[in-house]
Amino acid sequence: MTNTQVTLVQIDNYGPWTVTPEPRREADLQTMQSRLYADISQFVGNRGGYTFFTRFDNIVAVTNGCSMADHALLQESVGNRYPVTLSLGVATGRDPVQALSDATERLQDAGSAQDEDRRECLEGRAIDEEFRADDDVQIAHFDVIDATGNYTDELNAFDTFIEIEQGYAELMQHMRHVHDSLSFFVGGDNVIVVCPDLGEADYEEAVAHVAESVDVEMQVGVGRGKSAHEAGYDAKHALETCRADGTRVELEWENA
Amino acid sequence: MTNTQVTLVQIDNYGPWTVTPEPRREADLQTMQSRLYADISQFVGNRGGYTFFTRFDNIVAVTNGCSMADHALLQESVGNRYPVTLSLGVATGRDPVQALSDATERLQDAGSAQDEDRRECLEGRAIDEEFRADDDVQIAHFDVIDATGNYTDELNAFDTFIEIEQGYAELMQHMRHVHDSLSFFVGGDNVIVVCPDLGEADYEEAVAHVAESVDVEMQVGVGRGKSAHEAGYDAKHALETCRADGTRVELEWENA
Amino acid sequence: MTNTQVTLVQIDNYGPWTVTPEPRREADLQTMQSRLYADISQFVGNRGGYTFFTRFDNIVAVTNGCSMADHALLQESVGNRYPVTLSLGVATGRDPVQALSDATERLQDAGSAQDEDRRECLEGRAIDEEFRADDDVQIAHFDVIDATGNYTDELNAFDTFIEIEQGYAELMQHMRHVHDSLSFFVGGDNVIVVCPDLGEADYEEAVAHVAESVDVEMQVGVGRGKSAHEAGYDAKHALETCRADGTRVELEWENA
Amino acid sequence: MTNTQVTLVQIDNYGPWTVTPEPRREADLQTMQSRLYADISQFVGNRGGYTFFTRFDNIVAVTNGCSMADHALLQESVGNRYPVTLSLGVATGRDPVQALSDATERLQDAGSAQDEDRRECLEGRAIDEEFRADDDVQIAHFDVIDATGNYTDELNAFDTFIEIEQGYAELMQHMRHVHDSLSFFVGGDNVIVVCPDLGEADYEEAVAHVAESVDVEMQVGVGRGKSAHEAGYDAKHALETCRADGTRVELEWENA
Repeated sequence: MTNTQVTLVQIDNYGPWTVTPEPRREADLQTMQSRLYADISQFVGNRGGYTFFTRFDNIVAVTNGCSMADHALLQESVGNRYPVTLSLGVATGRDPVQALSDATERLQDAGSAQDEDRRECLEGRAIDEEFRADDDVQIAHFDVIDATGNYTDELNAFDTFIEIEQGYAELMQHMRHVHDSLSFFVGGDNVIVVCPDLGEADYEEAVAHVAESVDVEMQVGVGRGKSAHEAGYDAKHALETCRADGTRVELEWENA
Repeated sequence: MTNTQVTLVQIDNYGPWTVTPEPRREADLQTMQSRLYADISQFVGNRGGYTFFTRFDNIVAVTNGCSMADHALLQESVGNRYPVTLSLGVATGRDPVQALSDATERLQDAGSAQDEDRRECLEGRAIDEEFRADDDVQIAHFDVIDATGNYTDELNAFDTFIEIEQGYAELMQHMRHVHDSLSFFVGGDNVIVVCPDLGEADYEEAVAHVAESVDVEMQVGVGRGKSAHEAGYDAKHALETCRADGTRVELEWENA
Repeated sequence: MTNTQVTLVQIDNYGPWTVTPEPRREADLQTMQSRLYADISQFVGNRGGYTFFTRFDNIVAVTNGCSMADHALLQESVGNRYPVTLSLGVATGRDPVQALSDATERLQDAGSAQDEDRRECLEGRAIDEEFRADDDVQIAHFDVIDATGNYTDELNAFDTFIEIEQGYAELMQHMRHVHDSLSFFVGGDNVIVVCPDLGEADYEEAVAHVAESVDVEMQVGVGRGKSAHEAGYDAKHALETCRADGTRVELEWENA
Repeated sequence: MTNTQVTLVQIDNYGPWTVTPEPRREADLQTMQSRLYADISQFVGNRGGYTFFTRFDNIVAVTNGCSMADHALLQESVGNRYPVTLSLGVATGRDPVQALSDATERLQDAGSAQDEDRRECLEGRAIDEEFRADDDVQIAHFDVIDATGNYTDELNAFDTFIEIEQGYAELMQHMRHVHDSLSFFVGGDNVIVVCPDLGEADYEEAVAHVAESVDVEMQVGVGRGKSAHEAGYDAKHALETCRADGTRVELEWENA
C-alpha cells in the first residue's frame, strides 16, 4: 500500500517580483527558474526523491526520505543563494492527489501565493523513518513508442511537440481523474506518474485511453520502492523491457 | 512584416545516452537538462533572443541577432562543459512555423536525432546584420486572468496545473493551425507566442477561442521588435496595461 | 579530541583532457571547474561538510557526516552531469594533515592522477555514525582586520589581492608546519583552517607570526563541532565577537 | 603595443551581507560565489574576454571586445538572478596594472565597497570597436613542469598545493613589480598572466627568478591577440610547444 510524501514548493510572491519595478528580462527569469528547479531536483534527488518542474513557480516533489529538517535546510540554502524565497508544504497519504491537496492547503492556510507577508513558510509533516516501507512509492514511467522514428525525424519540431504534448495532456487528466495519480512531463517523450496502488489493468486501460483519444501510442514501466528513486529506477528497467520485448505495460515487481 | 530567425537545438543521440549502460538517475537527468537549457537561454538571451525549453532535448529559440559564429560558439562551449553535444539548425522566414520546419529539415537531412554519427551539426543561415529590421519579430505574451485568485489559492496545485496546462494545450494548437504561430509555456500561467504579422482581431479570436473551448480566461500583450527581447519586452509592457485596465488584448505599438 | 574526516576529490586525468584534441577555451574550463566545485560544495555542505576549491582539479573537503554511500552518490551524480569524472579518497584522523595524507595515498596507490585507466576510484573509509563525537572537527575562521578600509578602498584591486594572498601564503605554510592544520582561502579576506586540537595560545602565536612576517593583521574565531558546518558556524560567531570587541582570538566554546 | 581593457567587478557590500542578520552557511556562500564567477566568466568569455576569480568578491576581467552596453547587461542579468548586485569599473591602457588601478579608482570614487548606498555602479569607458588592434592583449600561460609527476602523485594533496601556491605567490609579486603584469592562478598548476609588451628575455628572467627563489620550475607560452581569448589561445599552443620540446619559453608569434 503506497504512502507517498508530497511536497509543494512555492516561490513566494513570484508573479509580482517578476514585474517589479519593471518587467525583468525573460531570459533571466527562464534561467533563474530552471536553475532553481535544478538545485531543488539535485537536493531532493540525492536523498532519493523526485522533483517535477510543473509550473516552475509551483513545483511538486515526491520527498519520501526527506525529513522536515532537510526541507528547512533546502529553504535556507535557496534563501542564501537566490533573489527569491520558497514556501514548502508537506503531506502524506495513500492517494498522491490527496497528499498534494493537503500539502497545498497547508500553504493556502498560511496565506496567498502573492501575499507579501507570507514568506518561507514550512508547513506539514514528514514520515518518520521508522514508518517508511518498501512499497511507499509507486512510479510509472511512460514514453511514446518510437517517438524519434514517428515524430522527431519526420515532423517539424513544433508538430512533434504538439503530438507529445497532446499525449501528455490527455494522460495527465485521465490519470488524475480516473486513477488518482499525478503525471508530469519530464522531457523528450517521457511522462513520470506518481500513483497509488494501481495494477496492470489500470495501466493497460490508461494506455488504451490515450491511444483512442488522441492517437498517441505509449508504453509504460512501473516500479515500487521505499523512495521515488527506487520506484522510478525499477520503472525505468521495466520500460526497458517494454522496449526490448515490444510490450505495452511492464510491472517490474512481477518480472523480478 | 516579420522575419523570424528560428533555431532548433537538438541534443545528439540523447535518448540512448540516458539509458547507457544503465538508466541514469532521473534527478541527474532533470538537473542536467534544465541547467543546459538555462545556459542556452542565457547565451541566446544576452544577445537578444528567446529560448524555450520545449521538450528539453529539442529546444526552440528565436535567435534574431545571433550569427552563425555565435551558434558555433554556443555549440563549442556546451561541448566543453556537458557530457552531451548539440546539433543546431537555423532558418528564417515570415512565418515562424515555416522557419522552424526549415530548421528542422536541415537537421533531419543531416541524420536521425538518434544517429550516433550525427554529432554537432550546424546547419542553415542567419540573417545578415544589414537585413535586420525593427519589426522582424512579433511576440505575444499571454497569461491567465487572476490565476492566483482563481486557481493557485483555491485548487490543489495539480488541479491548478491542469487548468493552466489545458489552456496552454488549446492555445498552442489553435495558434499553430489558425495563426501559424509557435506557443510556449514559460512557467506560472504565462505563454509566450512567436507570431507572424497578426493583428488585434486575431488575438481577440484566440482569447475567445480558448475561453470557449476550455473555459480558461486569458489576456495578451503584443510587441514588435528587432529581436525577441525587444518584441517581448514591449509585449510585457502591453500585458501590464491589460492588468491595469482590465482589457484582453493590447498591442504595444498602438499604445505608444 | 578531533577526528577529522577528510576527502580528496580528484578530477580524473584532467590536465590531458583540457588540451585534447586541442586546448579548450579557457573561459569554458573556468566555468566548468567552478560549477563542479559549487556542486560538490552544495552536496557536501548540505550534509554538514565544508569543501575547499584548493586547485579545482584537486579539491579538499571535510566530510564528517558523509558516508561512503554519500561519496558514491556524489561520484555517480557528477559522472551523469559533467564531461569529466571524479576519484575520491577518504581518511580520518586526529591530525588533519595526516588524514589528508592518507586520503591522498589511497588515490596514489590506485594510479596516477593522469592515468587514463584510473577512473572513478572510491577509496578509504568514513567514520561510522556511532563513533562521531561533538568535538570531531575544529575550525578556525581568520580574516584580515579592516581589509576594506586598509586595502580594498585604498589600493588598486591587484595590490589588495597581493596583500591578502601574502597573508594567506604565510598562514597556510605556518599552520601546516607548526600546527598540523590545513588552511584554505575562501574569498574576500577570509581563510578557513581545519585544525587538530589547538588552544588559544596557538592561534595567538599564528596571528603574531603572520603580522611579523608579512605585516598583515588578522583575527580569528574558532569553533568545535560534530561537523565542519557546526564547528565553522561557531567559528563565524566567534569572529563576530572579534569584530565587535576588537579582540584577536576568540574560542567560541569559552564564550558560551 | 598592448591596450588592455580591464574590468573590476565588485560585489556590492558583500562582507556585511554574508553575516546579516546571522552568518550565512559557508557552503552556500561558496556555492553562490563560485556560480556567480562562473556566470561572469561565461558572459565575458563568449565575447572573447578572460575572467579571473581573484578574491571572488573582487573579480578582475580582461574585457577587450565587451562594450559598456555589454557590461550594463551583465550587471542587469546578475541583478535579476542573484541575491547580490555588482558594481563595475572599466579602464584601458598599455600597462595592465595601471588600467586596473584606474578601474579601481573609478569604483573607489563612487563609494566604499561596503557603502550600502553604492549599488550597481557602472563607471569608465570601453575601447571603441574601431580602435581595437590585433596586438591589444598579451597573455602568458605558465605552468609547473611535470607537476603531476613531481608533486600530485608524490606528496600529499596539501603539500602539493603549498608548492604550487608558493610558485604562484612568488610569480604574482615578481610579475607585478618588475614587469607590470597581473598574474592569476586558474586551477591545477596553471597561472595566466596579463602582460604589457614583454619579450622573451623578460619571461626567461621570470621563470629563472621563481626557480631560484622558491625552487619551483615553470614553463610559459605567450600569445598576442585582439582579445584575451585570442591571445590566450595562442599562449596555450605555445605552452604545448614547451611541453613537446622541453623548452621554457615560447612566444607563439615567433613560431608562426
